[in-house]
Amino acid sequence: MPFGLSKRSGLTKLAGSKSTHRLATYEEEIAPMGHKPLSRFPVPRLSELPEDIRAQILAVQERTGFVPNVFLVLAHRPEEFRAFMAHHEALMEKDSGLTKAEREMIVVTTSAVNNCAYCVIAHGAILRLRSKQPLLADQLAINYRHADITTRQRTMLDFAVKVCRDAANLDEDDFAPLRAQGFSNEDIWDIGALAAFFALSNRMASLTGMWPNEEFYTLGRTPGSGQKKAPGPQTRTAKKATRRPKSAPQ
Amino acid sequence: MPFGLSKRSGLTKLAGSKSTHRLATYEEEIAPMGHKPLSRFPVPRLSELPEDIRAQILAVQERTGFVPNVFLVLAHRPEEFRAFMAHHEALMEKDSGLTKAEREMIVVTTSAVNNCAYCVIAHGAILRLRSKQPLLADQLAINYRHADITTRQRTMLDFAVKVCRDAANLDEDDFAPLRAQGFSNEDIWDIGALAAFFALSNRMASLTGMWPNEEFYTLGRTPGSGQKKAPGPQTRTAKKATRRPKSAPQ
Amino acid sequence: MPFGLSKRSGLTKLAGSKSTHRLATYEEEIAPMGHKPLSRFPVPRLSELPEDIRAQILAVQERTGFVPNVFLVLAHRPEEFRAFMAHHEALMEKDSGLTKAEREMIVVTTSAVNNCAYCVIAHGAILRLRSKQPLLADQLAINYRHADITTRQRTMLDFAVKVCRDAANLDEDDFAPLRAQGFSNEDIWDIGALAAFFALSNRMASLTGMWPNEEFYTLGRTPGSGQKKAPGPQTRTAKKATRRPKSAPQ
Amino acid sequence: MPFGLSKRSGLTKLAGSKSTHRLATYEEEIAPMGHKPLSRFPVPRLSELPEDIRAQILAVQERTGFVPNVFLVLAHRPEEFRAFMAHHEALMEKDSGLTKAEREMIVVTTSAVNNCAYCVIAHGAILRLRSKQPLLADQLAINYRHADITTRQRTMLDFAVKVCRDAANLDEDDFAPLRAQGFSNEDIWDIGALAAFFALSNRMASLTGMWPNEEFYTLGRTPGSGQKKAPGPQTRTAKKATRRPKSAPQ
Amino acid sequence: MPFGLSKRSGLTKLAGSKSTHRLATYEEEIAPMGHKPLSRFPVPRLSELPEDIRAQILAVQERTGFVPNVFLVLAHRPEEFRAFMAHHEALMEKDSGLTKAEREMIVVTTSAVNNCAYCVIAHGAILRLRSKQPLLADQLAINYRHADITTRQRTMLDFAVKVCRDAANLDEDDFAPLRAQGFSNEDIWDIGALAAFFALSNRMASLTGMWPNEEFYTLGRTPGSGQKKAPGPQTRTAKKATRRPKSAPQ
Amino acid sequence: MPFGLSKRSGLTKLAGSKSTHRLATYEEEIAPMGHKPLSRFPVPRLSELPEDIRAQILAVQERTGFVPNVFLVLAHRPEEFRAFMAHHEALMEKDSGLTKAEREMIVVTTSAVNNCAYCVIAHGAILRLRSKQPLLADQLAINYRHADITTRQRTMLDFAVKVCRDAANLDEDDFAPLRAQGFSNEDIWDIGALAAFFALSNRMASLTGMWPNEEFYTLGRTPGSGQKKAPGPQTRTAKKATRRPKSAPQ
Repeated sequence: MPFGLSKRSGLTKLAGSKSTHRLATYEEEIAPMGHKPLSRFPVPRLSELPEDIRAQILAVQERTGFVPNVFLVLAHRPEEFRAFMAHHEALMEKDSGLTKAEREMIVVTTSAVNNCAYCVIAHGAILRLRSKQPLLADQLAINYRHADITTRQRTMLDFAVKVCRDAANLDEDDFAPLRAQGFSNEDIWDIGALAAFFALSNRMASLTGMWPNEEFYTLGRTPGSGQKKAPGPQTRTAKKATRRPKSAPQ
Repeated sequence: MPFGLSKRSGLTKLAGSKSTHRLATYEEEIAPMGHKPLSRFPVPRLSELPEDIRAQILAVQERTGFVPNVFLVLAHRPEEFRAFMAHHEALMEKDSGLTKAEREMIVVTTSAVNNCAYCVIAHGAILRLRSKQPLLADQLAINYRHADITTRQRTMLDFAVKVCRDAANLDEDDFAPLRAQGFSNEDIWDIGALAAFFALSNRMASLTGMWPNEEFYTLGRTPGSGQKKAPGPQTRTAKKATRRPKSAPQ
Repeated sequence: MPFGLSKRSGLTKLAGSKSTHRLATYEEEIAPMGHKPLSRFPVPRLSELPEDIRAQILAVQERTGFVPNVFLVLAHRPEEFRAFMAHHEALMEKDSGLTKAEREMIVVTTSAVNNCAYCVIAHGAILRLRSKQPLLADQLAINYRHADITTRQRTMLDFAVKVCRDAANLDEDDFAPLRAQGFSNEDIWDIGALAAFFALSNRMASLTGMWPNEEFYTLGRTPGSGQKKAPGPQTRTAKKATRRPKSAPQ
Repeated sequence: MPFGLSKRSGLTKLAGSKSTHRLATYEEEIAPMGHKPLSRFPVPRLSELPEDIRAQILAVQERTGFVPNVFLVLAHRPEEFRAFMAHHEALMEKDSGLTKAEREMIVVTTSAVNNCAYCVIAHGAILRLRSKQPLLADQLAINYRHADITTRQRTMLDFAVKVCRDAANLDEDDFAPLRAQGFSNEDIWDIGALAAFFALSNRMASLTGMWPNEEFYTLGRTPGSGQKKAPGPQTRTAKKATRRPKSAPQ
Repeated sequence: MPFGLSKRSGLTKLAGSKSTHRLATYEEEIAPMGHKPLSRFPVPRLSELPEDIRAQILAVQERTGFVPNVFLVLAHRPEEFRAFMAHHEALMEKDSGLTKAEREMIVVTTSAVNNCAYCVIAHGAILRLRSKQPLLADQLAINYRHADITTRQRTMLDFAVKVCRDAANLDEDDFAPLRAQGFSNEDIWDIGALAAFFALSNRMASLTGMWPNEEFYTLGRTPGSGQKKAPGPQTRTAKKATRRPKSAPQ
Repeated sequence: MPFGLSKRSGLTKLAGSKSTHRLATYEEEIAPMGHKPLSRFPVPRLSELPEDIRAQILAVQERTGFVPNVFLVLAHRPEEFRAFMAHHEALMEKDSGLTKAEREMIVVTTSAVNNCAYCVIAHGAILRLRSKQPLLADQLAINYRHADITTRQRTMLDFAVKVCRDAANLDEDDFAPLRAQGFSNEDIWDIGALAAFFALSNRMASLTGMWPNEEFYTLGRTPGSGQKKAPGPQTRTAKKATRRPKSAPQ
């Protein structure tokens, strides 16, 4: 289970969208998808939430134009919500030897192994935005072994999938190919820790039965999509792409 | 492995496209995707093909605007090609108690179970065109159990997945829910035979290493796509995204 | 699901057998085995069939002395029947770098992995006739890894079983051993395409619940069985290979 | 791994067969099958064996006409041999609510689940002899769920396969169907204990790499086989192999 | 991967233990177990850690008498450490419809399914302390289906194991038995969220290769263990149960 | 399913223990554990047993201080009991290239793979006594790949687990590492035969539903345990249970 809305994400606010509209959106999202509710558990109203969580959600909406459902669903448990979001931030947003696109590749691939619709579709969108490769997320979602990726990326994903599926059998033979591809110790921790975190996320999505926002399905599929302007080279323009109020806590 | 290009498919030719251009397209398609060739086996030139197969391929290109890669790859073996295409036609195009969209649901779902990128992406496109539900294919590709489908469709797909994965254990307990949902004997044959045929197709795609045409990734994702008139206000940007000629047959 | 009855099969017509007897056989076959009917779906009478299919079935009966059940069961859908039989013929009967016995080894082995009684027993009979190794089919049916075969054959079957079971994970490491054993590109296509075709066949057999003709269980088990004299080179003497006494009960 | 040669087995000694011939047979059996030796471990000569084991083997040969390979291979460890044979005798030969044919059905079915060629082929022969159903063993060897058996037998085999494959998950839900079919507590112990014993046997066969005697492949396949009158010339030793005294209980 | 050392845990501080001794313990723990280091990644020295984490670790040591290895290993990444510990605290320490012993049962059982030695052994110790049932942890670690637990607990663990192993297939049939046993919505979230959190924890333990402190193996096994005085009849003296004599060697 | 009580086991009789007390123990053991009976099948009274079995059980009790439940449960079938115990003795007690502790390592590891509580807990105790490594059994029970063992032991256990889980795929590649570690042919037979025997034992334990004696959980966990001096008050019977004569070989 993921969310694609941190400070530097590509999901920037729509020019001219009204914030009054956004609150409405929040409550509307709780309405069921077809015959299914958004969660098997209660979804809190904005007014019921602790102040810090409400502010965090409004900031996301401001930036992104909508509130990813994972925020609505996990807010049911504020303490767990805070730990979850802090953990996610620590793994996805910090500086790392892995690019943000590579980290999203790990999320999409392992979430697909776990058949988690929320995470594959939401993070698939973010991967398209971050990688500028509109086909990659769909390829990883079906079979990363046949995706159009480099040998280095394949090695990274093989390891992530091993952690996802069969961590108990990890041994030195699994680490050697990563080192041969130049991944540092810190990179390897990142790969493994992302696979481990989404082992948790995928299960929370399945437990609650959350489903992805409709917006995620199409974001980033076409050259201009999801952005006010075409960004420049992937990570360099990140700072402006996702303007956020200074005070926004994550 | 699939193809979405029979006479009555939704992949109609683009108004004004040049047929001279199309031959060029055929040969160009043989070029590798990134670092991967289109097939592990030789891909014949149009001029080398038996007349009936060449005509069939040109007709597809005329209707669709491009030649789905499965035609190029399987044409290596003309006799097998003819049997394969006749079998596909018999299952996908004839009158049936199943709608064409339902048949594509079976293809996408079982091909996803088999992690077959070609079939999921190509038939995902056709499913979007035929069902007018732009989100459905992605949901089925990740986890049909959590897709926004009816109980009847879920029953149909449970049976198809059983045939796909574990046909040797089929017994009367698998047929009863189908009958309870009103599927006839002929419908049940269709469901099972489609799952069986794509067991073959998926394996041929994996054997040859074919990958889907880029066009399939985006077809039918927005309201106007694959349709004569813009549908209702499904998403914001849909209307312009998929302009198609009025005359397009489905 | 298989059938062993093509023109050049080892199941040749009995000298002097009466065709009047054979028609009776056709209808009789539709009677249930013990408490189980021949198919979960309607089995057409000979008189109801399209002329080309009726002729094909009578020819098989003429050559073989009985009609393999797969003909009776699949004839329910004439178009699918024609495509299926043409596909089978294209793979099993054409010239190939694989001997016909090797092709039957692939069929028996992958059908056993799929626990398909019809295909293992029917093609097991044909394998005995074609290989002149009366023990081989039973060995392959239980565990091909422990069968009395050559390293080259083991490599061929390892690949076929990978296609059967886990085609989505095929990669270059699976092709290298085949090349090291001298298999050509065309041979490799044949091995993979046979495994793919029987992925379909096995599932049709399971879907319909067809069971093998009793004749298949014993064909080719004893030195004299199915043959007047020891044949020379495998396929050339097929015509005489299966003469049976007039009185032969079925 | 099994053997079909206990005192009351259907493989009774041929009147008039020469014991001098039999000793020769014993030593000859140690010769490799094709390129494979009879065992990965030393196979003792008759003269090296403890007296009780030698006598037991000669008695088997006397009764059966040949020495099943399991005797030759396991005799390498006399103490384990004695315990193994006593255990087998206790389960297969004593009075029981299960017929001997039913017990052989359990052996063939679970050994097939374990892909054990020795046990499936050797006990398949015994099952043919004991059940007088020449097709049953082959059906069970491929897929017992599709064999021509009664509901009661299906229930028995479902339980045996559960013990074979997934004993750790046995619970009351597995026992209830047995009781509903009229199996007593003692019958249930027999079913489970047979599956457990062949879990051991199958693994010993795999460990040693033993293969079945050629005689087992054809025993009991034809109407006369296993009966008083010698069948036609099935195999070299067949004539002597299948005669049985009138009084032989089954 | 777990730790059993939060403020309210049963692992309370030794009366009079010296904090000078504790620092030594911290550094000593980094020494390898036999031939294996404590982590595949760097383990920080206490003096290198951020003040809040150092204080947290010293407090644990003060209470427990030793520092569980999970603290040492995860401190390598302070931000992830804080989120992980906050998440753990939120799930394990708050008020809940589940007792703390029940929560530990979930941890031990799902960690055993994941073959995670650290979590099974560390939380096994805590379970013994909290449940006062010295045999329960070992039973759950091997096969919770055969443990001496109530039907309600079995239902709870069945659900937890489903989340652990196969969350993508969760459906209403999995929730119904929980409701039938009286678990509330909040209880169900707790069960699922614990299984999800330990999906993460177990993978971090495998990734880093951490192993459990020796102390965990024996804690809570005997009536007097973890206590200053021997309690009376096992379950009666729970309150005092974890005080330990100064001299207690581990 | 195991028992740790043969003549030369580490569970030797306590000097001066009273046999009158022991008989009482025998009958008491038949009482249920919590809500579960000792076996799904009848457990014979001592007075009903054949003389040799009664003597064997009394001798065990004399040596060990209690009667392991496997004796009580399997005595229901005297002939099978005798064969089982003789087989166990042949494998566990004879001279071998493997130490007794190594043999117990195989038992604990493969029984854990089979999730067999009786065998893991009973043989875990014996392993602690024989190896003098109080942590080893718990490590093997959870994940032998992460246990603190030598490369040679890891190789031994890899092979044992292959026999346990997937014997049908054993091939020369599985034997080579054993030979490289210096295991002789006889050692390899021992490793494989132990895994095979406990495939039987584990299934009998699951079939009968037997559970381990409480004594096994704690035996050998503390330094003095299993040694000449009585440990602290571990369990009611502990004092007598663990004293051993100096000369006791391990």
